[in-house]
Amino acid sequence: MNYKELSLKMHEENKGKVGVVSKVSVKNREQLSTAYTPGVAEPCRKIHENGENVYKYTAKGNLVAVVSDGTAVLGLGDIGPEAAMPVMEGKAILFKEFADVDAFPICLDTKDVEEIIKTVKYLAPTFGGINLEDISAPRCFEIERRLKEELDIPVFHDDQHGTAIVVLAGLINAVKLVGKTFEDARIVINGAGSAGISICKLLLSYGAKNITMCDRKGALVEGAEWMNPAQAEIAKRTNRDMQEGTIEEIIKEKDVFIGVSGPNVLNADMVKTMNKDAIIFAMANPVPEIMPDEAKEGGARVIATGRSDFPNQINNVLVFPGIFRGALDVRATDITEEMKLAAAKAIASIISDEELNEEYIIPGAFDERVAPIVAEEVARIARETGIAKI
Amino acid sequence: MNYKELSLKMHEENKGKVGVVSKVSVKNREQLSTAYTPGVAEPCRKIHENGENVYKYTAKGNLVAVVSDGTAVLGLGDIGPEAAMPVMEGKAILFKEFADVDAFPICLDTKDVEEIIKTVKYLAPTFGGINLEDISAPRCFEIERRLKEELDIPVFHDDQHGTAIVVLAGLINAVKLVGKTFEDARIVINGAGSAGISICKLLLSYGAKNITMCDRKGALVEGAEWMNPAQAEIAKRTNRDMQEGTIEEIIKEKDVFIGVSGPNVLNADMVKTMNKDAIIFAMANPVPEIMPDEAKEGGARVIATGRSDFPNQINNVLVFPGIFRGALDVRATDITEEMKLAAAKAIASIISDEELNEEYIIPGAFDERVAPIVAEEVARIARETGIAKI
Repeated sequence: MNYKELSLKMHEENKGKVGVVSKVSVKNREQLSTAYTPGVAEPCRKIHENGENVYKYTAKGNLVAVVSDGTAVLGLGDIGPEAAMPVMEGKAILFKEFADVDAFPICLDTKDVEEIIKTVKYLAPTFGGINLEDISAPRCFEIERRLKEELDIPVFHDDQHGTAIVVLAGLINAVKLVGKTFEDARIVINGAGSAGISICKLLLSYGAKNITMCDRKGALVEGAEWMNPAQAEIAKRTNRDMQEGTIEEIIKEKDVFIGVSGPNVLNADMVKTMNKDAIIFAMANPVPEIMPDEAKEGGARVIATGRSDFPNQINNVLVFPGIFRGALDVRATDITEEMKLAAAKAIASIISDEELNEEYIIPGAFDERVAPIVAEEVARIARETGIAKI
Repeated sequence: MNYKELSLKMHEENKGKVGVVSKVSVKNREQLSTAYTPGVAEPCRKIHENGENVYKYTAKGNLVAVVSDGTAVLGLGDIGPEAAMPVMEGKAILFKEFADVDAFPICLDTKDVEEIIKTVKYLAPTFGGINLEDISAPRCFEIERRLKEELDIPVFHDDQHGTAIVVLAGLINAVKLVGKTFEDARIVINGAGSAGISICKLLLSYGAKNITMCDRKGALVEGAEWMNPAQAEIAKRTNRDMQEGTIEEIIKEKDVFIGVSGPNVLNADMVKTMNKDAIIFAMANPVPEIMPDEAKEGGARVIATGRSDFPNQINNVLVFPGIFRGALDVRATDITEEMKLAAAKAIASIISDEELNEEYIIPGAFDERVAPIVAEEVARIARETGIAKI
């Protein structure tokens, strides 16, 4: 059976993937009176007296809502909230498996930005954190920005920041491996959607000085009129040489290519025009911008993809469980840029200088060391930067 | 330790009561690719092709949202959504324990009727049913009415209907025990809030002909100007003798007293003025309208309360798990009056004529026969009345 058939079978046999369980026993009258009336009135009263007690007496502190409106699901696009459920359930069980976070899928029957914002705010008393998922750009930017501003629990749009963090982690190691520096590396990011822009911002935060972004219409360059507001903003901080042209032209003499675009955008000839020891992150899924063999043919030294059947998989599962674990553990009120950088550095640090090689710049998805160290570092930085409540 | 202390300890040690679990394993690459990308795209596609497939491939069909705005929590009143969490979590774990329903607490940070309705509608893609809980009257009526109308999944306000169904179940047996008939029984309901009115409506549906409702201001009587709209409506179908006066006067020559009012409203002298073989359901909690001993002193023959330390406990846990189990099993689009009557009759039927006695008119909260028979009967009636989808 292939994955399609296996997946249908798994989903049908189990009727989906998430379940709700009781953490306490209610098998007799005494337990019932403790977990429910009349005993339950007492934790209610304590929380009413002091709102912070909700973290002491309820599940809130470990509950994360995985919220989607189903408008940008995987490569499938706007398939609606019901059809998005399998992905949100999948995300929820990965939270549980990798970091013991109790995440619950919330698929919303509205695409209206204001309504989504309001709904998530109404839901917030139940949850300790909000993971936004598969919401189409540019709506996702406004939704995330506003929720971060208006809620005092962490809000994180994984499609943007999860990917950005793993890319940064991989790139930290790849650049070190080829003996270049992050500041000097000439980087091109192909695909100026939400993931591309988010990657760009995080690389800039980390210290990259030389990034050019490309989209279907060519290089983002300050002042170009075809760009959307998010692209116009990032264009001011990138491509300071004011290069124009398509990816074919822009990629010349670059050290790093990061693709969040589409299949077969790149070929060996284009890779040949890059600098020596080129680094290629070809993350289009399931068919990458260039297959690893062809990239090698073009002279690339380090190649990463989104696929589990090649080395160096860029997989968000390395990030979101640990980053929420850390944020929840210290009751952080936000997931900040500093916490994202801490997560990337923690992931990169898993691989020692001795182990580091062309086929091992990023830990595997099932490396059990990752989530704990990400959580620890994220929590530490949250505390140091004063946004942890405990 | 008393229940207050036990409850605080239980809630603190476990950090609340609900958890989320994975129903599938994601321990290796193949399982990850089946439960999540790339395999998960296939159930998504199937649901996008045909919306009904959401029941086949996701958890929706067994998920119930326990929704509250925290405005009428237990006897505590409007304590807000965070402080309501322990109750909603409690409800959720009882759903799981008694009928294997995956229920999840949703505490909303809004009291606005329209906003609550909209929010629940937005959440509906995720859930197979909605249990409204601890929402204050009269807002709860409009919220339930509109959601029932506008959603095609079952919506049930347990505070109203759960209580009404157990009361009817107990009363069916109590009336039989004392050799009276439901049609002839003269019934007074003290407390004309949401629970009282809901009890009244269900007793009327079952065939009661002679009910008078009382509130603090006295008997509800058609045309009285002090009544709210819900009371004015029910007054047209009750108290056909147009009796006026307080409960002290109204209770005279009645066969049944049903109290959903407050502590110590009744005394032995008042019970003495009732008909022979009087039936008293004194459900105020934790202090009933009259203590069982005093009621007996007044000549009452059957006494039920809301408390677990006296015989004949009127406990909603006999209803909501089974009624949702039945509705979900046949994918009912609603929980109708017929299904509620079926649930009450099913609960009453547990006790055989031989077993029936003054101290055993209603099964105990932990009677494992209850939820399955309620589910079965509710499902059967849903199918017979054409509102079951499978």
